[in-house]
Amino acid sequence: MKAGFIGLGAMGAPMAGHLAAKGLLAVVDNRTRNKADALAAQLGVLAAATHSDFAGCDVVALCVPRDEDLAGQVTALAEVLRPGSVVVDHSTVSVAAARSAQALLSARGIGFLDAPVSGGVEGARNGKLSVMVGGDAADLEIARPALEAYAARITHMGGTGSGQATKAVNQVLVAGINEAVCEGLALGERLGLDPARLIPTLMAGAASNWFLDKRGATMLQGQFAPGFKCSHMAKDLGIVQAMAREAGLRSPVVDMARADYEQLSLRGEADSDTSALILLKRMPATRDD
Amino acid sequence: MKAGFIGLGAMGAPMAGHLAAKGLLAVVDNRTRNKADALAAQLGVLAAATHSDFAGCDVVALCVPRDEDLAGQVTALAEVLRPGSVVVDHSTVSVAAARSAQALLSARGIGFLDAPVSGGVEGARNGKLSVMVGGDAADLEIARPALEAYAARITHMGGTGSGQATKAVNQVLVAGINEAVCEGLALGERLGLDPARLIPTLMAGAASNWFLDKRGATMLQGQFAPGFKCSHMAKDLGIVQAMAREAGLRSPVVDMARADYEQLSLRGEADSDTSALILLKRMPATRDD
Repeated sequence: MKAGFIGLGAMGAPMAGHLAAKGLLAVVDNRTRNKADALAAQLGVLAAATHSDFAGCDVVALCVPRDEDLAGQVTALAEVLRPGSVVVDHSTVSVAAARSAQALLSARGIGFLDAPVSGGVEGARNGKLSVMVGGDAADLEIARPALEAYAARITHMGGTGSGQATKAVNQVLVAGINEAVCEGLALGERLGLDPARLIPTLMAGAASNWFLDKRGATMLQGQFAPGFKCSHMAKDLGIVQAMAREAGLRSPVVDMARADYEQLSLRGEADSDTSALILLKRMPATRDD
Repeated sequence: MKAGFIGLGAMGAPMAGHLAAKGLLAVVDNRTRNKADALAAQLGVLAAATHSDFAGCDVVALCVPRDEDLAGQVTALAEVLRPGSVVVDHSTVSVAAARSAQALLSARGIGFLDAPVSGGVEGARNGKLSVMVGGDAADLEIARPALEAYAARITHMGGTGSGQATKAVNQVLVAGINEAVCEGLALGERLGLDPARLIPTLMAGAASNWFLDKRGATMLQGQFAPGFKCSHMAKDLGIVQAMAREAGLRSPVVDMARADYEQLSLRGEADSDTSALILLKRMPATRDD
């Protein structure tokens, strides 16, 4: 198996590293050229000059920010990949974008999996991501050795789009949990509770969650290095809102969270970790509240 | 050490059972008389006829619903307990109620700990609760053997009231996490995702939390046996709102959750588990939303 990786951000770079460590990675690419060159040199693989450099790959994994980035990459890959190869998209995009990609590639006999991930930068670094896969089971079997390089769990959710649908649900939970944890810790601070006692106490009961465990202590120390950026969360929640509206459901938790991350982005925190939400939660109530 | 236990509800009854199993329990009481008689017979301890039956106790633990229940019990116990004994309140009440109880008992030389718990009925049944203690360190040492009967973790948070302050923070997290999980699972249902795949997938990533793990599958099957009742959550969140207001903070997550649990109570779900929140999240959006 020969794999390629496109999109070497906070998630993509360590994921590509795991593929290389397993001897599966042949070629990488990235929007910012010198990032691809540096990682390729470090991992001993090729930095793609053109998409043709992916022609020999059995599997090409993508980790890009937006619907339009996915569409651009897939259009280019459709020209060069051989039938029977599989494109695996780890990005968080709309179900419609996943379906378009699948249709375009399938016309060339190329497989497509929408396979967004959860587990944060820690999960990417430790190779312990949860991968939510939509698409054909046979394509998943082709891609599985690559996914296993960085997954703690690979779940085949159903047909094309069901990976993205699952990720949407995941982001409802993540966004709402962030709201709860940041609002709670801001109150705890104001009440004068010692974080070194508070956080383990909360983790030992029914309030236990991943975000408190991984980001509780750092947010109280004012450390907001991503992690997962506020601007990316706002983008994801836009996708989720559209999906909820289409499904005929209200989404008050998502609406609140999206407004908060938009506000954080306007306040200069677009590239901060989502735990920067505590900055809003600390703001004093005004008379109008 | 001789312990008494007052308030034998969903949490109190199994907690008293753990005390009895350790040979520490002498006497129990409960608002509903026959519940006390039945449990006393089962555990081989005394069902109190009057508060005088607690006179010989070193430690009396309380698990009652409201501020006024605590005040009533403490007033009666102050008349009968000997100096040096300790009252441990596991209820969720206001910081002011905890301070009043401490002042009243302290005038008689009786110790008081505000020691609310988290971990749900599972935690009570398994003896794995997180106990958040406010009060005097010396009183905690007297009560510790009793608390250890049902605690996975005992954290001394500070002076009187700091246990309740910690529980308030805990309830912000719990209420907000419930909102996130129920909104997310309602969307997942509508998108046709298989719960048997969805829940473990979410639990393997950054959305991981206690409530999804313990209540996710049952809520999707329409099982809302408490657990933790909607009416109790609404009561707790009223306490939290007052605390946030006094601290000068907004509390949008708590406000949303309290309104939802009030609405659930009006719809006949007062005694249902808080996971019944999914019933509201499933309601279709109207044109006004």
